[in-house]
Amino acid sequence: MTELSGHNPRTGALLPKTVEETSLHDLDEDLRKASDVRSRCAASASSSRITWLQAVGEDLESFRNELVALADDETALGEARLNGELDRTIAQIKLFVDVLRDGSFAGVVIDSADEAARPELRRGLRAVGPVGVWAASNFPFAFGVIGGDTVSALAAGCPVIVKAHPSQPVLSARIGEIVTDALRMAGAPKGVFAVVHGMPAGDALITDPRLDAAAFTGSVRGGRALFDLAFGRPRPIPFYGELGSINPVVVTPAAARTHPDEIADGLLASATLGVGQFCTKPGLVFVPTACGIAERASSRVGDAQAGVMLNAGMRSGFLTGASRLADLDGVDVSLPGEDVDEAGFWVQPRVAVASWDAFQQKRDILTQECFGPLTVVVEYDDVEQLLDALSMLEGSLTGTIHGIADDPDDAAVAADVVAVLQDKVGRLVWNGWPTGVAVAWAMQHGGPYPASTNSSTTSVGAASIARFLRPVTFQSFPEGLLPEHLQDAHLRGVIRRDGRPQIVPGEGGDGA
Amino acid sequence: MTELSGHNPRTGALLPKTVEETSLHDLDEDLRKASDVRSRCAASASSSRITWLQAVGEDLESFRNELVALADDETALGEARLNGELDRTIAQIKLFVDVLRDGSFAGVVIDSADEAARPELRRGLRAVGPVGVWAASNFPFAFGVIGGDTVSALAAGCPVIVKAHPSQPVLSARIGEIVTDALRMAGAPKGVFAVVHGMPAGDALITDPRLDAAAFTGSVRGGRALFDLAFGRPRPIPFYGELGSINPVVVTPAAARTHPDEIADGLLASATLGVGQFCTKPGLVFVPTACGIAERASSRVGDAQAGVMLNAGMRSGFLTGASRLADLDGVDVSLPGEDVDEAGFWVQPRVAVASWDAFQQKRDILTQECFGPLTVVVEYDDVEQLLDALSMLEGSLTGTIHGIADDPDDAAVAADVVAVLQDKVGRLVWNGWPTGVAVAWAMQHGGPYPASTNSSTTSVGAASIARFLRPVTFQSFPEGLLPEHLQDAHLRGVIRRDGRPQIVPGEGGDGA
Repeated sequence: MTELSGHNPRTGALLPKTVEETSLHDLDEDLRKASDVRSRCAASASSSRITWLQAVGEDLESFRNELVALADDETALGEARLNGELDRTIAQIKLFVDVLRDGSFAGVVIDSADEAARPELRRGLRAVGPVGVWAASNFPFAFGVIGGDTVSALAAGCPVIVKAHPSQPVLSARIGEIVTDALRMAGAPKGVFAVVHGMPAGDALITDPRLDAAAFTGSVRGGRALFDLAFGRPRPIPFYGELGSINPVVVTPAAARTHPDEIADGLLASATLGVGQFCTKPGLVFVPTACGIAERASSRVGDAQAGVMLNAGMRSGFLTGASRLADLDGVDVSLPGEDVDEAGFWVQPRVAVASWDAFQQKRDILTQECFGPLTVVVEYDDVEQLLDALSMLEGSLTGTIHGIADDPDDAAVAADVVAVLQDKVGRLVWNGWPTGVAVAWAMQHGGPYPASTNSSTTSVGAASIARFLRPVTFQSFPEGLLPEHLQDAHLRGVIRRDGRPQIVPGEGGDGA
Repeated sequence: MTELSGHNPRTGALLPKTVEETSLHDLDEDLRKASDVRSRCAASASSSRITWLQAVGEDLESFRNELVALADDETALGEARLNGELDRTIAQIKLFVDVLRDGSFAGVVIDSADEAARPELRRGLRAVGPVGVWAASNFPFAFGVIGGDTVSALAAGCPVIVKAHPSQPVLSARIGEIVTDALRMAGAPKGVFAVVHGMPAGDALITDPRLDAAAFTGSVRGGRALFDLAFGRPRPIPFYGELGSINPVVVTPAAARTHPDEIADGLLASATLGVGQFCTKPGLVFVPTACGIAERASSRVGDAQAGVMLNAGMRSGFLTGASRLADLDGVDVSLPGEDVDEAGFWVQPRVAVASWDAFQQKRDILTQECFGPLTVVVEYDDVEQLLDALSMLEGSLTGTIHGIADDPDDAAVAADVVAVLQDKVGRLVWNGWPTGVAVAWAMQHGGPYPASTNSSTTSVGAASIARFLRPVTFQSFPEGLLPEHLQDAHLRGVIRRDGRPQIVPGEGGDGA
C-alpha cells in the first residue's frame, strides 16, 4: 500500500499523517456502487436532495475547527482565510438548496398537443449519471472535495467520485468521511459519494465506462491531458475543465488620470491576494504610458508580504515564470527582496512592467499565465493598438475595465474595449477587481478556452448545476408514467406552454 | 478546378449540372469575412435577426418549385415529401422568429448588488462566433444548407459556413445563392453566410482557428472523425454531432395482446418511411414471443414498396448490414423480393426477426444501426431479461413504449421500462412512433452517445439555439455600457433577481 501525505508549505516538511492511495479494486467498488445508485439518485425528489445537502452543510459547520486546522496544515492559507472560505462553501451548499427549492433548474417546458402540428411534448432535465470531480488545491474547501463541482452534481442527482488533490490528502480524506456520514444519515443512497486518492485511481476514473461526466479545476497541462482522455474514449463524456486564465485588465486614459494611485493599490491587492493563487488573479494590465500606475505598483510591491505557495511545484513554476519575464528586454520586474532558497514554499510578490515595444515582441511570454503573486503591467500609447492586442488574447475567466462612464470620450473607449473583451471572457468587471467570485444566480465563472473547456457553462453559481443534467422529452405520456417534475400535479415555477411562458405557483421549499 | 455533381438515385446516372469544388483560397475568404462580422452579428438586435430570417423564409417559399425539382433530381424523395419538408423548414425558421421575439433565449439573470454578499451581476447569452455546419443528406431542406443547425446559429447571431453534402451539390449551391441574396437584401452583414463544397474545404474548416463551433448530422464514422478533429485542436471547439441511433421500441405484454396488428402495421410504416432514412427510424423492437407482431410485420413487408436510397454508399451500407443479419443463426429476414442489381439505388424493405437466444448471442450485430428500410424484431419471454438487455444498449435519439396505462400490471412493466430507457435516450414516445420530429419548444432531438456527441443539447426545436450561445456576466456595469438585452430599459420576459423570478412585460414582436 502506498501511503500519501502532504507537506507543510511553511517548512517544506512532510506532514506526519498519511492516507492510503486508492487501489484500482477499491475504485472499481466505488464505481460499481455509483453505477448501481445512478437511477435512484436521478429519480430522487428534489426535497430529498435538499435534505442531503443541508446535512452536509451542517456537518461541515460542526467540524469547522478540525477542518480549518487540517486545511491550514496542508495549505498554510491561514485560519482567517480558511474560515472565510468554509463560510463560502457552506453558503454555496445553501445556494443549491435554493436552486432545488426554486425548481426552474429542471428546465420544464411543455407543448400541448395540437392535431395539426404535434403530439404533447414535456421536456425536463435529468441527472446524467456518475460524475468524477478533480479537486483543486487553491481553494481547499470551495473548489475541493465538497466544493462547487461536487455540490452542483449532487444537487443535480448525480453520484460523485472525487479525485482528491495530492497536496491535501488528509484534509480530503477527512472531508470525505464527514460528507459520506452526513449523506448516509440523511438517507442518501449508499455509493452516492466517494473520495479517491492517487494518480492510478484518477487515470482509471476518467476512462471508466461507468463515468458520465467530469469536472476539473487546475492547470492547462493537467486539465488538457484529462480532457483528451475524456473525449478520446469510445464513448466520449463531457469534461468541464477550468484551466488557465490571464484575466486582462484595461485602465482607460481618463481613469488613469483621475485616480492612478487607487488603481495601482487595488491592482496590487488583487494580484497578491491569497499569494496570487486565484484563477481570477489579474495577470495582465494595460495602462497608459507614464500614467504613474506602473511606478506606484512597482514601488509598493514591498507592502505585500512574502507568502507561502501551496506546494513545491507551484513555487518552482512561479519562479521559472517570473525569471523568464525578468530576462526580457524592456521588462522590469520589481520585488521586495530575494526569494530565500529555504525549505518552505515561500515566494516574494512581483510587479513586471513592460513597454509597448517589449509587449509587441514578446507577446507570447508576456501573455502566459504565471500562477502566483505576479502581475504584468503593459504601457500603451494608442487605443487602436490596445484593441488590436486585446483581440489577440486567448480566452480568460474575466476581463476588467477601469474607466469613467460619465466622460463621453472615455466611455467610448470603454465601449470599444467591452466590444473586444466580451468575446474573450466569461465575466466583465467594471471599476473593480476580478478576484472574489460571488456565489450567486447570475455568476459566470468560465470563458473561452483555455479559461474553460466548455465556455457555455459555469463552474460557480446557480447555473453550474446545468453541467450535470440533460434533457429528456416525454411524448404523449400518461400522467402516471411521467417523472414527478413533469406531472400536472407537480408543475411549478416558470414553464412554457406552446411558446407562451406561464408561471405555476410554487409551494416553496417542498422540492419537486 | 474540380467539378462536383450528384447522381440520379433512380438510375444511378451522373447528373449534368455541376458545382465547383471550393478552393482553400475561397474558404479562407469566407472565414475571413465571417470572422470580420462576428462581433457585428453578435451585437445585432434580435429585431434585425428576425428580419434576416423572415427574408430567408419568404425567399425559400418564392423559389419553392425550383428547389423541390432540384432536390428531387438529387434525392429522388419525391415532390410530396419534399414539399412537406420545405413547409417544415420554413416553419422552423418561423419558430426561431418566435424564439427571438420571446427573448428568453438570451438567458437574462440578474442579481442586484448586496453590500454583504455581492456586486451587481447581470448574466446574458452572447453568440459564440463563426459556426461550421455539415449538412445531412436525408433531409435536404430540414437538415440541409438552411436546416435547423444553420437557422438556429443565425438566430443566435453567429456567422455560418455550411459544408454542403456531396450528394446534393446543385441543390446546396442554389439554396446558398437564395439565402445569401435574402440575407443581403435584409441588411445582414456581408459574410454572415456561405456554402462550401468538397472534402478539402470541409477538412480545413473544422480545424481553422477562426471557427468557434461546429454542427453535424450524419454517420457515426464521419461524425466521430470531425469530432476528433474539433476536440483535438490547440483550441478545442464544441462539436454538436447527431450520429447513429437504433431507437429501441418496447411492446409490453398487454399491448401485444390487445392490438398486435395495429402495432405491427405502425412499426412497418415507421421503419420504411422515407426508405428508412430517418435518424429516428425504429431499428430494434422488443415484442413478447409469439404475440403475432413479428409474423404480421414479416408477412406484410411486401406492402411497403421498394424504394430508392439517397446515394450509392448508403445503398451498399444497407445491403451489407442486411446480409450480415440474414447470415445469423436464429434470425429470419423477410423481404418482398430480391434487390435487383441495377444501376439505381433501389432497395427492398426488410423485417428481421430474432429469437431471444439469437439476440443474447449476437447482441453486437443486432443492435447496430442499419440505415435504411429495415427493422429488427426481437422476441422476449421475460421482462427482467428485457430490462437487462435495455440497460446494455448504447444511446439513442428516441425510445418508444407501447403499453396499456390503465392496466396496473402493464403500467408497472412500462414504468420499469421508462426507468431504464430514460438513461438511454433523449425522447420517450408513448404508444406512437419515433419518426416525425415536431419542431417545437419542448422537443429534444439528441441523446447519449452515439445518438449525439453532446447529450445536453438538441438539434431540433427552440432549445437548439443554446448550442451557439455562451454566457457573459457584467459586474457593476453602468447602464450605457451594457449590451442592450441587459439594460434596464430593455429587460423583458422572465428574468431572475436575487433568486426570485420576475416577469418583465415584453412588448411582443419588436425584438431586444
